[in-house]
Amino acid sequence: MNLAKIEAAAARLAGAARATPLLEAPLLSARAGKRVLVKAECLQVTGSFKFRGAWAAVSALPAETRGVLAYSSGNHGQGVALAAARHGLPCVVVMPSDAPEVKAANTRAFGAEVVLYDRQHEDRDAIGARLCAERGLALIKPFDDAEVIAGQGSVGLEIAAQARALGVEQGEVLVCCGGGGLSAGIALALEAHAPGLRLRTVEPAGFDDMARSLAAGERLRNAQGTGSVCDAILTPSPGELTFPVLQRLAGAGIAVSDDQALEAMALAFTHLRIVLEPGGAVALAAALKAETHDPVICVASGGNVDPGLFRDVVARFG
Amino acid sequence: MNLAKIEAAAARLAGAARATPLLEAPLLSARAGKRVLVKAECLQVTGSFKFRGAWAAVSALPAETRGVLAYSSGNHGQGVALAAARHGLPCVVVMPSDAPEVKAANTRAFGAEVVLYDRQHEDRDAIGARLCAERGLALIKPFDDAEVIAGQGSVGLEIAAQARALGVEQGEVLVCCGGGGLSAGIALALEAHAPGLRLRTVEPAGFDDMARSLAAGERLRNAQGTGSVCDAILTPSPGELTFPVLQRLAGAGIAVSDDQALEAMALAFTHLRIVLEPGGAVALAAALKAETHDPVICVASGGNVDPGLFRDVVARFG
Repeated sequence: MNLAKIEAAAARLAGAARATPLLEAPLLSARAGKRVLVKAECLQVTGSFKFRGAWAAVSALPAETRGVLAYSSGNHGQGVALAAARHGLPCVVVMPSDAPEVKAANTRAFGAEVVLYDRQHEDRDAIGARLCAERGLALIKPFDDAEVIAGQGSVGLEIAAQARALGVEQGEVLVCCGGGGLSAGIALALEAHAPGLRLRTVEPAGFDDMARSLAAGERLRNAQGTGSVCDAILTPSPGELTFPVLQRLAGAGIAVSDDQALEAMALAFTHLRIVLEPGGAVALAAALKAETHDPVICVASGGNVDPGLFRDVVARFG
Repeated sequence: MNLAKIEAAAARLAGAARATPLLEAPLLSARAGKRVLVKAECLQVTGSFKFRGAWAAVSALPAETRGVLAYSSGNHGQGVALAAARHGLPCVVVMPSDAPEVKAANTRAFGAEVVLYDRQHEDRDAIGARLCAERGLALIKPFDDAEVIAGQGSVGLEIAAQARALGVEQGEVLVCCGGGGLSAGIALALEAHAPGLRLRTVEPAGFDDMARSLAAGERLRNAQGTGSVCDAILTPSPGELTFPVLQRLAGAGIAVSDDQALEAMALAFTHLRIVLEPGGAVALAAALKAETHDPVICVASGGNVDPGLFRDVVARFG
């Protein structure tokens, strides 16, 4: 992983992905007691940053590739499905059967075949490997892949330029963290282009494998696989490629409760007029905590939310 | 009104207002049966395009101005309140007592004094004139003012550049229309910078004074003052300054039902992950109609929505 790979991915993404805005609202900053800037990746094509990494990986495949496969809780699958369709490639997405229905429906609408599995009793890696072997498909990993990390790193290139345009040279960049692909890519881009901005990962409490791994200096696993509303970022442990990058570049990781994530969704609705899913709101939730820096930039990483859950959030916190 | 005034306003807006993104979603275009591009002014500072016109007008006031006053159903008031605060000027906002509470609360949070009046039995112009005389305040009109129109016209400058970058040179630009300030400003900008893009106004059915006036060749009034959920764009008749501009430059006006506006809010929630208010969604609603052009650009003009109404919309259409 290096900066040149990120810049090459960003060049391939031009015209395919969207440069998302860095939003700010006076009343949100007043509520947080600090200047809060929100990188609105929920406005990305397919509704999350995952389209960047998917496009970067699919566009780097050899010409003889017959098709692609992704295993994903939803956003990665949607990103790969659309990237594959726009490259004229068939796509299979292996998805847990308890993922929000909107994600499976959208993945199918982007032209992919969806294969459901039981998160408690089946091994998604084994299912994916079998399908790849049978059909000659290329696996697009969700985070532990150099091209995927490079594509997500394009978010960091944009943040560096947008923060500089606003005069923000020192501060923290909070990133919603599953396996660490988005965090690692952004950290590498910031190292080169905005060295005064320090990245910190944000995870759901009880699923803070990255924060504990960074503190311990080795990759640790979560005790459980399910049990948070932040379904998009529940991964068992940090990636092999992503962890060393973050060990070198990231500050202390942060964990937030499910309720803090849901309240952040409501604040984004009210003050920024954007729609976030719980896993895409944990960085904003952390920005509201006293322990984070002023100014703070947080990545709002996705907005593919179940409508019923969103209604409940607006009713409770809106 | 001329282009130079719009370009001067846009220069004053740089660094104060946000250049909003032109969003697009494959599944939304598939639903509409045409390419739909959405200018997301709900992401503007204070949550609507109104901040542009407010800033343009306040920044053009003479240095001896002691304060400003606006009468507004909400979005204009919020825009003027924040623009005045950032210029260090006191601000009074005269607002109908039936406007959504979120709008009054936000206006106060931006530092303005809110004066409520009864839309059925009191004359807001008389109330505003008395306060201006008593306190020496400058009135910032919501649409029938050259500086306000020029500020809103900056939306049109951005649309022209963004559409050209996407290769869209021919098409329709649909604009949510109250008194016509946003529409007139955009029409003037497009005339100069994107002559292949034709503007059409969109209003709630029963409050389509602009559409009927354009068809009749004279300014007509609505029969009623209330009765649509699209509260932000219920004005009695086209403006004196805005109507001649639109008579020269706009195509036939369009009217949509309240339910069509609410369904468009739900589609924006699902496919674009943005929050719209009903009056800010009528242009997107019109884009879904067969009578509008392919490709179509619609301005999503505001997102200051009552949370309870938004929940109902997601429950009905989400």
